[in-house]
Amino acid sequence: MENRHSLEEEKVFKDPVHKYIYVQDQLIWNLINTKEFQRLRRIRQLGTSYLTFHGAEHSRFSHSLGVYEITRKVISQFERGGYQDWPKEEKLVTLCAALLHDIGHGPFSHSIEEVFDMNHEEWTCRILLESTEINRVLLEYDPLLPERIAAVIRKTYDKPIVVSLVSSQMDADRMDYLLRDAYYTGVNYGTFDLERILRVLRPHQGRIVVKESGMHAVEDYLMSRYQMYWQVYFHPVTRSSEIILRQIFRRAKELYGGNYTFSWIINPIEQLLNDSIDLEAYLSLDEALIQTAFSQWVKESDELLADLCERFLNRRLYKYVTMDHADEELWADIRDQFLAIGLHPDYHLEIDFPYDMPYDVYRPGTLHNDLDKEDKPPILLLDQDQQLSEISERSDIIRSITGLHQGKYHLYYPEEPLLESLHKLQPHIRELFGFM
Amino acid sequence: MENRHSLEEEKVFKDPVHKYIYVQDQLIWNLINTKEFQRLRRIRQLGTSYLTFHGAEHSRFSHSLGVYEITRKVISQFERGGYQDWPKEEKLVTLCAALLHDIGHGPFSHSIEEVFDMNHEEWTCRILLESTEINRVLLEYDPLLPERIAAVIRKTYDKPIVVSLVSSQMDADRMDYLLRDAYYTGVNYGTFDLERILRVLRPHQGRIVVKESGMHAVEDYLMSRYQMYWQVYFHPVTRSSEIILRQIFRRAKELYGGNYTFSWIINPIEQLLNDSIDLEAYLSLDEALIQTAFSQWVKESDELLADLCERFLNRRLYKYVTMDHADEELWADIRDQFLAIGLHPDYHLEIDFPYDMPYDVYRPGTLHNDLDKEDKPPILLLDQDQQLSEISERSDIIRSITGLHQGKYHLYYPEEPLLESLHKLQPHIRELFGFM
Amino acid sequence: MENRHSLEEEKVFKDPVHKYIYVQDQLIWNLINTKEFQRLRRIRQLGTSYLTFHGAEHSRFSHSLGVYEITRKVISQFERGGYQDWPKEEKLVTLCAALLHDIGHGPFSHSIEEVFDMNHEEWTCRILLESTEINRVLLEYDPLLPERIAAVIRKTYDKPIVVSLVSSQMDADRMDYLLRDAYYTGVNYGTFDLERILRVLRPHQGRIVVKESGMHAVEDYLMSRYQMYWQVYFHPVTRSSEIILRQIFRRAKELYGGNYTFSWIINPIEQLLNDSIDLEAYLSLDEALIQTAFSQWVKESDELLADLCERFLNRRLYKYVTMDHADEELWADIRDQFLAIGLHPDYHLEIDFPYDMPYDVYRPGTLHNDLDKEDKPPILLLDQDQQLSEISERSDIIRSITGLHQGKYHLYYPEEPLLESLHKLQPHIRELFGFM
Amino acid sequence: MENRHSLEEEKVFKDPVHKYIYVQDQLIWNLINTKEFQRLRRIRQLGTSYLTFHGAEHSRFSHSLGVYEITRKVISQFERGGYQDWPKEEKLVTLCAALLHDIGHGPFSHSIEEVFDMNHEEWTCRILLESTEINRVLLEYDPLLPERIAAVIRKTYDKPIVVSLVSSQMDADRMDYLLRDAYYTGVNYGTFDLERILRVLRPHQGRIVVKESGMHAVEDYLMSRYQMYWQVYFHPVTRSSEIILRQIFRRAKELYGGNYTFSWIINPIEQLLNDSIDLEAYLSLDEALIQTAFSQWVKESDELLADLCERFLNRRLYKYVTMDHADEELWADIRDQFLAIGLHPDYHLEIDFPYDMPYDVYRPGTLHNDLDKEDKPPILLLDQDQQLSEISERSDIIRSITGLHQGKYHLYYPEEPLLESLHKLQPHIRELFGFM
Repeated sequence: MENRHSLEEEKVFKDPVHKYIYVQDQLIWNLINTKEFQRLRRIRQLGTSYLTFHGAEHSRFSHSLGVYEITRKVISQFERGGYQDWPKEEKLVTLCAALLHDIGHGPFSHSIEEVFDMNHEEWTCRILLESTEINRVLLEYDPLLPERIAAVIRKTYDKPIVVSLVSSQMDADRMDYLLRDAYYTGVNYGTFDLERILRVLRPHQGRIVVKESGMHAVEDYLMSRYQMYWQVYFHPVTRSSEIILRQIFRRAKELYGGNYTFSWIINPIEQLLNDSIDLEAYLSLDEALIQTAFSQWVKESDELLADLCERFLNRRLYKYVTMDHADEELWADIRDQFLAIGLHPDYHLEIDFPYDMPYDVYRPGTLHNDLDKEDKPPILLLDQDQQLSEISERSDIIRSITGLHQGKYHLYYPEEPLLESLHKLQPHIRELFGFM
Repeated sequence: MENRHSLEEEKVFKDPVHKYIYVQDQLIWNLINTKEFQRLRRIRQLGTSYLTFHGAEHSRFSHSLGVYEITRKVISQFERGGYQDWPKEEKLVTLCAALLHDIGHGPFSHSIEEVFDMNHEEWTCRILLESTEINRVLLEYDPLLPERIAAVIRKTYDKPIVVSLVSSQMDADRMDYLLRDAYYTGVNYGTFDLERILRVLRPHQGRIVVKESGMHAVEDYLMSRYQMYWQVYFHPVTRSSEIILRQIFRRAKELYGGNYTFSWIINPIEQLLNDSIDLEAYLSLDEALIQTAFSQWVKESDELLADLCERFLNRRLYKYVTMDHADEELWADIRDQFLAIGLHPDYHLEIDFPYDMPYDVYRPGTLHNDLDKEDKPPILLLDQDQQLSEISERSDIIRSITGLHQGKYHLYYPEEPLLESLHKLQPHIRELFGFM
Repeated sequence: MENRHSLEEEKVFKDPVHKYIYVQDQLIWNLINTKEFQRLRRIRQLGTSYLTFHGAEHSRFSHSLGVYEITRKVISQFERGGYQDWPKEEKLVTLCAALLHDIGHGPFSHSIEEVFDMNHEEWTCRILLESTEINRVLLEYDPLLPERIAAVIRKTYDKPIVVSLVSSQMDADRMDYLLRDAYYTGVNYGTFDLERILRVLRPHQGRIVVKESGMHAVEDYLMSRYQMYWQVYFHPVTRSSEIILRQIFRRAKELYGGNYTFSWIINPIEQLLNDSIDLEAYLSLDEALIQTAFSQWVKESDELLADLCERFLNRRLYKYVTMDHADEELWADIRDQFLAIGLHPDYHLEIDFPYDMPYDVYRPGTLHNDLDKEDKPPILLLDQDQQLSEISERSDIIRSITGLHQGKYHLYYPEEPLLESLHKLQPHIRELFGFM
Repeated sequence: MENRHSLEEEKVFKDPVHKYIYVQDQLIWNLINTKEFQRLRRIRQLGTSYLTFHGAEHSRFSHSLGVYEITRKVISQFERGGYQDWPKEEKLVTLCAALLHDIGHGPFSHSIEEVFDMNHEEWTCRILLESTEINRVLLEYDPLLPERIAAVIRKTYDKPIVVSLVSSQMDADRMDYLLRDAYYTGVNYGTFDLERILRVLRPHQGRIVVKESGMHAVEDYLMSRYQMYWQVYFHPVTRSSEIILRQIFRRAKELYGGNYTFSWIINPIEQLLNDSIDLEAYLSLDEALIQTAFSQWVKESDELLADLCERFLNRRLYKYVTMDHADEELWADIRDQFLAIGLHPDYHLEIDFPYDMPYDVYRPGTLHNDLDKEDKPPILLLDQDQQLSEISERSDIIRSITGLHQGKYHLYYPEEPLLESLHKLQPHIRELFGFM
C-alpha cells in the first residue's frame, strides 16, 4: 500500500543551489500545489536585502523547497546507513514539516511581526490546522497529520529527533538559507561543504549528532553563518531599509488609530492596521499588496507617511553614523535638536544595535536577537567510543564565536532635512553627522 | 575637467554573475539612483518563467547593471588595445545606453505589449526625453545627451559602432541575459566564456567584429543561446503561463470596453485598459500592481476573468498536447466541441508555435519571432590579413543553426472542464487530449 | 552473503569533478589498492596537453575513479527505477570494467602505441588475465571474473548493455573525461549537465537509450565534445609536442636498430626499443621513467635525439603554419630544401591533419581518427510510445556535427635552423614560413 | 623606451583558478620560457598530497604563474588608485620576484631539505645569480636585476613594500596556493573572495595594509588558511607518505655513507647523497628522477630501502594511532618492543606532532612549524582617519586563531610486520595499535 503514495515517476525541480530537487511522494507534490504554498513565491526570502544586494530577489518558495530537499537527503542517508536510532516511520511527517516550516511567513515578516505583534509560527500552525488547501491535503492522507506537523513546528512533538532535524543550531533550514542567500547575493561566505556535513550527521538517542571526524566541517559551517550575519544580514543598508519599512507600518497604524482617513486602502491592510486580521486576509497579504499600498500612499496627505513610502520605493534610505558605545545623554540631545528643526525624532532617528549569537552553548534564555529567539541545544560530537562532547570544548574556532557578538551602535537619520537646517544644529551634532 | 565627472572612489555592486559591477562615473551613479531606474527592481527579467524555474526571480534592475558592466569591460579592452576604430569620446553615451536600454519595460512586457499594442522601445525614448528624473540627470550633464541616447536606442545614431555594442547579434544585452538567466534558473546551458569573447572583439570600420581565432568561442555562445531558447525561454509551462496572462489582459480589456463594472480597479490599470495610458501611469505600472489587481479580480463576478486570475496566482496552468503539423480542420473541430460543452474557445484553447532564429545571416526582414524583431547584421570574423568573412561560412555548427528553427505545435487548454464533460467529446478529441 | 562483499563503512574519495567518489564494495576497494592501479597515478590523462594548458596535469588514476563513479550512479538510477531491462546481477562486473578500462595505458600512450605498434586494450586484457595483483584480487572474488571483464573490454561480452555503458558514443568514459579535462584545463566548453543526462538514460533491450525529453541534453553533451576536440585535444601546441615525442621514440628506435650505443639506457626502455617488452617491464614504464630517459638523452652524442629531447623537456616546440588544402608537390619541394640546408625532413617536417567524428551515425568502418577507432552504434531516443529513433534524425544540431570534421593542414617545423639558413630558402618557401 | 619591453600583443595562459593569466612584458615572457622555469612543471606543488587527494597533481609551474598574476592585479589596482605610497618603478622587480620566488624548489622539497639540510631560498638565489638561463634573461634587461630580485627573496630589499607583497602573512604566494590547492583537491575550505581582498589592500608607508572595511574579508581568508592546514596540508595520510619519503632519503644516505653499493644510481642522486650537489645537478633533480630511482631501488638488496620504496610507489603507507599527550616513556617502550620483533624503530616508528600558526601577531621568533619559519609582521587595518591597528585587536575570530595551534600526537608504523608478531607484543601495546 506504500505505493499508493509514491509518484509514478519522480518529479524534479531545477534548483540553482541543489541542482535538482526530487519529489517522490504524491503528498509532497500535492502540498506544493496548494495555493498557500504557491503564495510563498510572492514573498522574498530576505525581505529588503535586495536593496543592498540586488541579486537577493529569491522567494520563500525556493527556500522551502530547499529545506525539504536537504531533509530528504539526510533521511535518505540515515536509511542507507541503517541506523537504529532513526525512526523510519517519521519520514513523511519530517518531510512535510521541512517543506511547510515557513508557510506562515508574511511579507517582510520581521518588520510586520514587530509592529503588529504577530508571530509567523502561530500562523504556520493555523494554516496547518484551519480551513486551508494544505489542511485538506494533509487530512486526506491521514487525519492526524496536521496536528503532528504542528507539534513539530511548536517543538512539542514526541520524537525530538524530528524537531531537531527541522529546527536546531544545524538544521536543514539554516543549511539551505546560508547556501541559498550566498548564491543569490553572490557573496561566497555562505558556502560550506553540504555533502560532507550530511555524511557526518548521525541519529543518536533522540537527537542529531555529528561524527567526530566532521568537527572541521561544522567549524566551516558556523563560520559561514557568522560571516553571513555580519556581512549580509546585518548590512547597514539593509537595516536602514528595514527601519523605514517598520516606520511606515508604525505611522500607518498610528494614523489609522487616529482620525486620519486614508485616500487609498485595501481590506487586508485595513484589518492589519486594525489588529484584527483573519486567516483569509493574512493569506492574501503578499509583497505585491504591500508595495502597491506604498506606491499609493506616496500620494497621501500625511507628509510623513508619504515621505517614508517614497523613500522605500525609490531607495532613498536613511544614512547612518556609528558609535562604539551607548550615550543616552547625547541621543536625547540629538532628539531635542531634531525636534527643534521640525523633525519627528520617533521617525527620523533610530538607534540600531546589531548582535548575534552564532553558536550558543549555554542556553541562557536571556538576551537574544530576534533571529534566534529560542533556546537551542548545543551541537554534539560523537566519538568512536560513542561518547558525546559539546563541540565548543573541542574547537578553538567555535569557542571564539560562542555567545553574544555585538556590533557598533548605528544612528540612522534622513540626510536631506539635516542639510537644510544645518546652521541650527549645535557644532558637536554637526560634526557627529559628518558636516563640518 | 574630466575629473568633475569621476567618482572620488569607485562604487561597487556585488553581482552573482560578474562578481562585482564597477561604477566610476558620477553620471552613471546618478542614473542608477533615479526612481525610474529603481522601478526596474519591481519587474522580473524573465516575466512568468519563475513559474517553471523557481529560481528565475531576478529583476530587470540586475540585468541592466549587467549590461552596463559588460559594455564597460568591452570599452575598457578597446581602450587598453588602443584601437583606432573605437571612437573614445563615445564611451559615456555608450555606457548610458547600455544601462538604460531596458528602462521602458513594463511588467510582463511581452504580454502587455501584444494585447495593448505598445512597444517598450518607444517608452524607453519617452523616459529619456520627457519629464523624468532620468531626463533631468542627463540634461544636467549635457543638454544633447537625452537625444543622443534615444538615437542609440532607435538605431539611428550616427556612430553605428555604438549601436552595434548595445544591440546586435552578439551585444552586451544578450551576453548578460544568457549568463544571468542561466545562473538564476540553475541550468548550465547559458554559460559561455565571457572573458574570452570580450578578448576577441575588435572595433573595425564602424562595427564590432570578432578576431578569427575566436570563432569557436562564438560557436559556443550561439549554441548557449540556442539551448536557452529551447530549454528555458520556450518551456511549455512558461508559455502556458504567458497565455493565461495574455488572456487576463484580453478579457479585462473586453470587459472594460463593454458594460462591465469592475468591483476593484486602480487608475494606471484603468488607463491601460482604456488604451490611453500616460507616462506617469506607465511608470507606476509594476508587477506588484498587476499581481494586486489579479488577486482582487479573483473575486470579480465575471467568472472567466476570475478563473484566469486564480489560475495565474495559484499556478493552475493550462495543460498542453503537441502536434507535429498544423491541422486547421481539426482545430476548428476542437473549437466547436469546446463551444458545445460551454467553454470559450477564444480563451480556453490556444495554439502556440514556438520558433526562433538563433543566428540570422540573410537579413530577410520576413518572418521573425517577437523576441528578435529587427534585422540584425551578421557576425563577421576578422582574419590576420584584415579580411572579413561572415561566420556561418566558416562554421558548420553555426550554419546548422542559421535561419528559422521551429518547434512542434502546442495546444493549450484547461484540463478540469474537459474532464467534467468527457463523455460529450468525440472519441478522437478525447484521445488527442490523452483520455482513453 | 552479499554482505560479505560490502564494506563495513563506505569509503569516499574527494574528487573535484564529482565532489565525492563512493566505494561500497570490498572488491572495488581492493582493486584500487593494487600496484597496477596505483601506477595510473604516474600517467597523465592528457599526455602532453599540460604543455598547452598548464592545469592539465591530472592522471589516469583520477579519471578511472571518475568513470567508476559515473557508472555507479547510472546503475544506481537503473536500480531505483526498477527497470526490467537492466540485468541486476551485472552490477559488479560493470563497475570493475569501468574502473579498469584504462588500466593498460602506458605513458603518452598515443605516441608509444603508434611508434611501437601496440594497443592499450590488449595490455588491459593481459593485466586482467596474467599474473598481476589485479588478477589475483579478481580471482579471489570469482574465478570467472577476469575473463568476464576482459570480454567487456573486448566488446564480446554476452550482455551488450554492459559493453554499452563502458564503451559507446555516450559512455561513462567520455562523460568523465569531458568534465574532468574541462575542469583541469580551466576551459568551460566541456561542461554539460551530467545529473540530467544520467536521469534520462534508460536500459532498453540490451542497449542504453535516451528518453526523448533528454534530446537537448544530448545535444549539449555532443557539442561539449565537439568543442573540446577542436579547442583542447587538437590544439596545435599539443600536437606539436606530440610530434616531438613521437620523433624521439622513432629516433631512439632507429638508433637502437642501428649500431648506436646509448650512453644511458634502462631495461624497460631497452625492451621497448627492441619490440620485445614483457608485461612486467610494461608495468614499470611510467612518465617518470620516460622523462628521466629524455633528461639523460639530452647528453647523447646523437645530436638529433639530444635536440628532440631538449625540445620536449624545455618546451622548445616546433612552430607551425596552416594550409587549407593538401599540396603534395609543395611539400616535396619543402623537403628538398630542408635537406639542402642540412635538416632531416623525416624529423624536421611533419604535416598534421586533425579530423574528428564528433558523432557517427553511419558506422562506416572506414576513415576514423585514432581517438575513436571502432564502429560505434548510434544514440537512440526512446519516445513515450517506446519507439526508438536515431538522434540525428531529430536534431539539426547533431546532424550538423555528424560525420567527419576536418581542420586545416598544419606543417610543423623547428624555427631556429630555418632562421639560420634563411637566405638559402626559395622566396615562396620563406614567405610560407612567415619570413619576408 | 618603456615600449621596448612591452609585448606587441599580450599573451594569455588559460588558468583554472584565475581564468586567464595575462603576460604583458617581454621580460616575463622570456623568464617563463627558460628551462629552469619550465622545470617547475615536473615538480608537484603539494608534494605527496596527491596520495591523499588524488586531484592534487598540480605543479609549481601553475602556482608560480598564479602568484605572478595576483601580484600583477594588486599592482594594477595600486596604479589605478594612484596611491602615492606605491613606488611605481618597482613594478617589474616585484613581478619577477613573484614569478620566481619558488624557482629554487626541488622535488618533494620539504623532505629533501630536511634530510640533506638544504634550503630552497638559497637555491633560488643561486639560480638568480649564477650561470643559468634565468640569470642571462635578467642581465640582458638590466645588469642589476638579478641582485635586486635576490634581495627581495632574502627580504633585504630596500623597499620593504615589495618584500611585503611577495612574502608576508597575506602575500600573493599564500593567496594563490590556498585557492589553487582548494581547486585541485576539490575541497572548498580554501575559497575566499580574492577580488574583494585585492580591492581593500592599500600601500601605506612601506607596507601593505588593509582598509578597515575589509576586516571580515581578511577573517574569511585566515579561516580558509586555518582549514586548509588542518584538513589538507596536515592530513595524516599525507604525513604518512612524507615520513616514508624522508626515511627513503635517510636510508639511502646512510647506505651511501656506509659500504653499500647501489645496484642502480644516477649522478644527481649520487651528488645528493654525497652532500655535494652542484647547481647543474640540482636543476636536473625533478620528481621524475626521484620516482625512477625509487622504482629501481625496489630491487635493491637492502630490504629496508626496497620496502620503503615499494611502500611509497604502491601507496602502502604506514598506519597511525593518535595520542592526546606526549608520553616519552611509552614511546621508549614501543621502540624496545619493535626492536625485539626485528623492526628498526628509527625507520618503523615515527612520532609526528603537527602544529601551525595560522596568524602570528607576536613575532616571537620561537617555536614555529617548518611551513612558516620566519617572523612575519602582523596584518594592519587602516581606518578612515588613516590610523593603523593590528587586526587581532579588532576581530574575535582572528584572535581565536592567533598563535600556535597544535594537533594530537600521531604514531606512524607499518601494520603488516606488527600483525605477524602480534603475540610477542605486550598487551597494552597491542591495544594501543588497535589489536585486541
